[in-house]
Amino acid sequence: MSTAWVTLATNDGYAIGALVLAHSLRQSGTQHALHILYTDGVSPALRAQLTSVFTASTLVNVLDSRDIANLALIGRPDLGVTFTKLHAYRLTQYTKAVFLDADTLVVQNADELFERPSFAAAPDIGWPDFFNSGVFVFTPSEQTYHELVELATSQGSFDGGDQGLLNQYYSNWRELDAAHRLPFIYNVTSGAIYSYAAALKKAGKDIKIVHFLGSAKPWQKGAAHAHVGTHWAQWQSTFDSNVAQTLPQNLNPA
Amino acid sequence: MSTAWVTLATNDGYAIGALVLAHSLRQSGTQHALHILYTDGVSPALRAQLTSVFTASTLVNVLDSRDIANLALIGRPDLGVTFTKLHAYRLTQYTKAVFLDADTLVVQNADELFERPSFAAAPDIGWPDFFNSGVFVFTPSEQTYHELVELATSQGSFDGGDQGLLNQYYSNWRELDAAHRLPFIYNVTSGAIYSYAAALKKAGKDIKIVHFLGSAKPWQKGAAHAHVGTHWAQWQSTFDSNVAQTLPQNLNPA
Ligand SMILES: O=c1ccn([C@@H]2O[C@H](COP(=O)(O)OP(=O)(O)O)[C@@H](O)[C@H]2O)c(=O)[nH]1
Ligand SMILES: O=c1ccn([C@@H]2O[C@H](COP(=O)(O)OP(=O)(O)O)[C@@H](O)[C@H]2O)c(=O)[nH]1
Ligand SMILES: [Mn+2]
Ligand SMILES: [Mn+2]
Repeated sequence: MSTAWVTLATNDGYAIGALVLAHSLRQSGTQHALHILYTDGVSPALRAQLTSVFTASTLVNVLDSRDIANLALIGRPDLGVTFTKLHAYRLTQYTKAVFLDADTLVVQNADELFERPSFAAAPDIGWPDFFNSGVFVFTPSEQTYHELVELATSQGSFDGGDQGLLNQYYSNWRELDAAHRLPFIYNVTSGAIYSYAAALKKAGKDIKIVHFLGSAKPWQKGAAHAHVGTHWAQWQSTFDSNVAQTLPQNLNPA
Repeated sequence: MSTAWVTLATNDGYAIGALVLAHSLRQSGTQHALHILYTDGVSPALRAQLTSVFTASTLVNVLDSRDIANLALIGRPDLGVTFTKLHAYRLTQYTKAVFLDADTLVVQNADELFERPSFAAAPDIGWPDFFNSGVFVFTPSEQTYHELVELATSQGSFDGGDQGLLNQYYSNWRELDAAHRLPFIYNVTSGAIYSYAAALKKAGKDIKIVHFLGSAKPWQKGAAHAHVGTHWAQWQSTFDSNVAQTLPQNLNPA
């Protein structure tokens, strides 16, 4: 069984996120490969870092005109990044994979995710009948990839992004066995809800993956954010210890 | 099979909420009885309204010294209201019941909730591995009541309220079959999460029960709130058409 964590970066900001994520995965002692999907929006200096830190890398094209299915996407620039995430399904060298957004951080070993059935994801705190697509367990498959592209072109995505599209595709997710619904500790996104504080106190030590969802990302210098301070600081410290010194000075956000 | 919707009011504000809720339930064409639990914190004028609008009512005591189990709660005033909600479990004249917070509004018939297995509740958007205790399907039982009181006195509640206590008691809820996890449309609480807007557009027409969770309640005149405008207006209009003219003038928040 060949397995990998998969992430994606289409520009230098997300590439920095992906590097921090990769280091956090290594620090967690993961037994699985780390695979990065990147586009030519990532600058050469950062591509070199990505290919050295990740186990494997794939340069993907946002709109690949050699792919008939992709052609239909032309004229839908809003689906560009969505489509790029879908490339993860083409990594059929792996029998099981876990996609992680580049704005996630692994704070404790989470290798047991690979024992989950495919498809599995955690609820989205905006509307918990939908899953959040920042962390998901999946089985790479060309057929699924084509069905997803087909769905994107025929119906579009209800939120304009990959989360809406994947929720339309796996529309029965809410009704599946509990094994398919990842505990929230695998994709902790902080909401401004008062019940969050008490839950965080009770379940905080169990958190395995933090997700810096939203417009403020930890690689943006001085970003005002609504995330848990210790999580944000943990990202910064992983960045400072492992990534900062490897970046060209103009790319260093710190 | 005898069934009822159950709610609770310990003061005049929540009693007004309960009246609006009861009218919304009648407007939905429900086939089930409406049962109100109230304490002597509700003024006589509102008690009269409650007993005339609800099918049945029970005056409950926050700290009932005749109940040995309750005695242990003395010295834990923070558990007072929690304990009062637990009284719902003593309504053993019903074989199945659905508890609704007094700050909920039924916007479409939801009688099918009584076909759900007990216990059933919807995820809390603060931490979706826990359920929100504003809407739950349960089977009244003196034994469960005593076990809950026992748990309250021995361990307390991790959030100081009924939600923490019930989540400790039903700690395997997350692992239960999907039937025990109510769809979010039965307890829609609005979060300030950007994915909420797209989901609301997609699933909004399916919403059955709205929950005005948080410190701003619709019976508080001019309250600044983060709820969906149309939901807040729907509460106001139910209040204006059915409740306003029945209240003594000093209690009318409009
Ligand atoms: O311009 C972009 C936007 C997104 N992404 C990738 O797509 C994921 C999802 O986007 P984001 O995390 O910004 O969305 P959010 O989690 O905030 O909804 C990112 O983590 C990246 O892996 C990217 O590479 N470039
Ligand atoms: O002072 C109070 C507080 C609460 N409640 C009852 O307990 C429920 C839960 O409290 P609330 O709705 O204020 O909590 P939230 O949903 O905002 O967490 C209310 O809806 C009422 O039914 C009450 O009667 N009096
Ligand atoms: Mn993300
Ligand atoms: Mn409430």
